[in-house]
Amino acid sequence: MGARHFGIGPAGIPQTTLVRMKGSAHFGIPANGSVAVCGLGLIGGSVVRALRAGGFGGRIAACDIDLPLLQARLAEGWIDEIVQDPGSLFDRHDLVVLCQPVAALLDCIAAHAAAIGAGRAVVVDVASVKAPVVAALQAGGAAAMARFVPCHPIAGKAQHGWDASEAGLFQGKRCVITPARRADSQAEARAAAFWAGLGAQVAWMPAEQHDRIYAALSHLPQLLTYAYLHSLAARPEAEAWLAYQGTGFQGFTRLGGSDPALWADIAVHNSAPLVAEIDRLGDALGLIRRHLLRGDGAGLSAAFADARQFHGAAVAACAAGRATTVARVSRVSSVPSLTQEPR
Amino acid sequence: MGARHFGIGPAGIPQTTLVRMKGSAHFGIPANGSVAVCGLGLIGGSVVRALRAGGFGGRIAACDIDLPLLQARLAEGWIDEIVQDPGSLFDRHDLVVLCQPVAALLDCIAAHAAAIGAGRAVVVDVASVKAPVVAALQAGGAAAMARFVPCHPIAGKAQHGWDASEAGLFQGKRCVITPARRADSQAEARAAAFWAGLGAQVAWMPAEQHDRIYAALSHLPQLLTYAYLHSLAARPEAEAWLAYQGTGFQGFTRLGGSDPALWADIAVHNSAPLVAEIDRLGDALGLIRRHLLRGDGAGLSAAFADARQFHGAAVAACAAGRATTVARVSRVSSVPSLTQEPR
Repeated sequence: MGARHFGIGPAGIPQTTLVRMKGSAHFGIPANGSVAVCGLGLIGGSVVRALRAGGFGGRIAACDIDLPLLQARLAEGWIDEIVQDPGSLFDRHDLVVLCQPVAALLDCIAAHAAAIGAGRAVVVDVASVKAPVVAALQAGGAAAMARFVPCHPIAGKAQHGWDASEAGLFQGKRCVITPARRADSQAEARAAAFWAGLGAQVAWMPAEQHDRIYAALSHLPQLLTYAYLHSLAARPEAEAWLAYQGTGFQGFTRLGGSDPALWADIAVHNSAPLVAEIDRLGDALGLIRRHLLRGDGAGLSAAFADARQFHGAAVAACAAGRATTVARVSRVSSVPSLTQEPR
Repeated sequence: MGARHFGIGPAGIPQTTLVRMKGSAHFGIPANGSVAVCGLGLIGGSVVRALRAGGFGGRIAACDIDLPLLQARLAEGWIDEIVQDPGSLFDRHDLVVLCQPVAALLDCIAAHAAAIGAGRAVVVDVASVKAPVVAALQAGGAAAMARFVPCHPIAGKAQHGWDASEAGLFQGKRCVITPARRADSQAEARAAAFWAGLGAQVAWMPAEQHDRIYAALSHLPQLLTYAYLHSLAARPEAEAWLAYQGTGFQGFTRLGGSDPALWADIAVHNSAPLVAEIDRLGDALGLIRRHLLRGDGAGLSAAFADARQFHGAAVAACAAGRATTVARVSRVSSVPSLTQEPR
């Protein structure tokens, strides 16, 4: 594993390595190879759709706890094979994409660590929390660690399930790779090429840093949305107020449609960083509350201005990210090693 | 003032009276009448644009602290006249629309209460907080109260200023009227017809109730967005994290672009209901924090499910509102009294 993986840039952030390909995507696997997808929800379903839309010529196997869902996808031609036992996947496919919720994923790693370590497949996951995945791999041994590349495509939305999945879900989105201590560089390169083939910009960082960043940028906004809606739901009169909602309310609460069980699963597996974020938010809200009690409009305005300045930086970073995507696509010939098959 | 104004429905909410007109809008004033708009920002600018787009044939005067802005709008033909002294407006126009920020509006009422009471104009405002406006009118005397109809069109957005204004801003949006104790029913009818002419659905409720509802549905989401961004802005490392933001972050922080001074002004004038809302939010966040510390996934899931259920009710209420708009537009002949000139 090279210095690029944990390189720290001047701003204290791991150096990002962006990998991007165009034209006929390679997906990091042989053109006639085989991919297995575990869990055909939003992310797993979008992986299947993106592979098909990208002209992947190999086989796609899928497993899921919902057998009728698998049968319907098989009948429609999205998948080639239904697999009941995840343990059988790791030696039969080139790439296994584990798209279960966090708790189910950790159970799967614990149950099948030996098979993962002994198998020929490169294994990736898509969980929103990474330190518990790395810990499960470390508990599973060096061989499992070498074959398994923890990944997080930043491609969630409030809708879940196969029906919400889309071929373009990963286009221009980040995919963060958080390698386990003994990750195999060939396995990592294959994982990176897979996500790049689906249109994502790949970046590397340590799992703990990933979990702190996404506690702040993703998990806290989700929990704040739930907390806000919960505080309204507790009041009988509030439902009648909804006739008076404006567009600000609608935008602010959009994450409220997200799946409660899925988010409870993410939150309990990232609880320490999330509690720290809640406390920081509490401090900021406490400051605003004090200004309100004192009628201190200037104090409020100054705090709000700091917030808006950060919002401006966020909007600029988003625009810069889009520009980077365009620039990278036009310079793909500069990363030839990852357009080759890693095996 | 009839029973409709403060009628309380079975759900504890004031009965809503919806007024809607179609075709050539009447705007509650004679076709060759005169309107003055104070403050050509998002709301005032949209009033001017909507009047012009609706074929209003009378004169539009405007005043603003930004003289070059007024001169540009005059040169472009949006307005017919620049007014420097608001005190001169109330006897020279049929309708005066005060679109200043809250503090400036309260100063204006205090300074010109006698002129408002003695003038022939019906006066409306657009402030997001209504109890202080009603209080200022009560301090200004019975005559001012009779001519002034406190209004709040629910049509804000994160962008402000003339450049953000649009003719269709009020289409299908609510406009809440919160009459002062001695409001004049003819003045109210004219104000309602004005907003209905701009495309809004008019509703009535007491000012204190308005301020509690919008503290919960509008002001708290804005303050939570600022508090969240403020908690990030306080950390030097957070700006580098922005390269890793997802679409959830972007949607959740959209209100962060709003004008700090404008929102500080709203917040200090609605501080008591806002502090109560912050405390309720703190309770909900505290519940989630305790579940996190205990690793209680089931508790989190139950709290999140309550929140999502309320979100579903909000989405349904929004859809029902849209359906109501369509239904009312097709039944306009049932409210003929408001399509006539009130004078």
